[in-house]
Amino acid sequence: MLRIGHRPGRDPRLTTHLGLAARALGAKRLYLHPPDEAIRERLGKVVSDWGGTFEVVPTTDWKKVIRDHPGPVVHLTMYGLALEPQLPELRRARRILLVVGGAKVPAELYALATHNVAVGHQPHSEVAALAIALDRLRGLPGPSPLRGARRRVVPTARGKRVVESPRSAR
Amino acid sequence: MLRIGHRPGRDPRLTTHLGLAARALGAKRLYLHPPDEAIRERLGKVVSDWGGTFEVVPTTDWKKVIRDHPGPVVHLTMYGLALEPQLPELRRARRILLVVGGAKVPAELYALATHNVAVGHQPHSEVAALAIALDRLRGLPGPSPLRGARRRVVPTARGKRVVESPRSAR
Repeated sequence: MLRIGHRPGRDPRLTTHLGLAARALGAKRLYLHPPDEAIRERLGKVVSDWGGTFEVVPTTDWKKVIRDHPGPVVHLTMYGLALEPQLPELRRARRILLVVGGAKVPAELYALATHNVAVGHQPHSEVAALAIALDRLRGLPGPSPLRGARRRVVPTARGKRVVESPRSAR
Repeated sequence: MLRIGHRPGRDPRLTTHLGLAARALGAKRLYLHPPDEAIRERLGKVVSDWGGTFEVVPTTDWKKVIRDHPGPVVHLTMYGLALEPQLPELRRARRILLVVGGAKVPAELYALATHNVAVGHQPHSEVAALAIALDRLRGLPGPSPLRGARRRVVPTARGKRVVESPRSAR
């Protein structure tokens, strides 16, 4: 996925949440525009602890990321066409680039995207839109830990259970 | 829904996004602990522009909100049991209180909730968890504007179309 319009130096939680949600719901990488080393490190730490191969790829040229993508480029925007009727087509695609902007989205993005897709037409949140789009496109991931995880959750009805294991044991 | 552990004075965007997503996906209100007048005003402005009856209810006693709720209290946590098998039961409930915490969740919450439910067992985002839970429980809302809206989106394949109408016209 591609995040446009991140604001380095402001509170990093929103873009961190976006990256965490992307990883947790099966995205392969986050192209981050503009680059922000603090975010990359923070998400790298999560991968180191919880496994998988999710990566943050900083970029100063978001249009190139879109041009280079071999498949649908799905811009999530409340101004677009409803998601649901587009799901059958999108589910057939092998690689989708999901794009989310912040409060101010460059007008060119609407033209460069192959699909402008709305997860509802009310003001909401790019984190919410991304989460629902990934769930609708791929479903929720199962409970297994990701490859290389040092930590994993043991699902439980009350409280927290986390198993820590040395990486070498896996 | 109930948001616990908001941090007034820090960047308000995360809780704002939570409130926006809750409203956009059909929640009736956001109980906000601790209270934050700035958030209440910001979300009130969205309701004034985009319609509906969503409200922010500040609270200093989150346990009372839970105790007073006549139905399932669903705490969204990566440590809980998977969402999917619990959906049939939860969909039958008339009123559900969804609860999300921040990074540090009070241990009592796991006991007070009737359900501790995981939208995946990886670190993610309370905004993502809320969005997916609401989508799975209720589905996405249709394109119609909410009652009293002064603005509405006209869904479009490229760009933005927003119709503004005086409130009296509705």
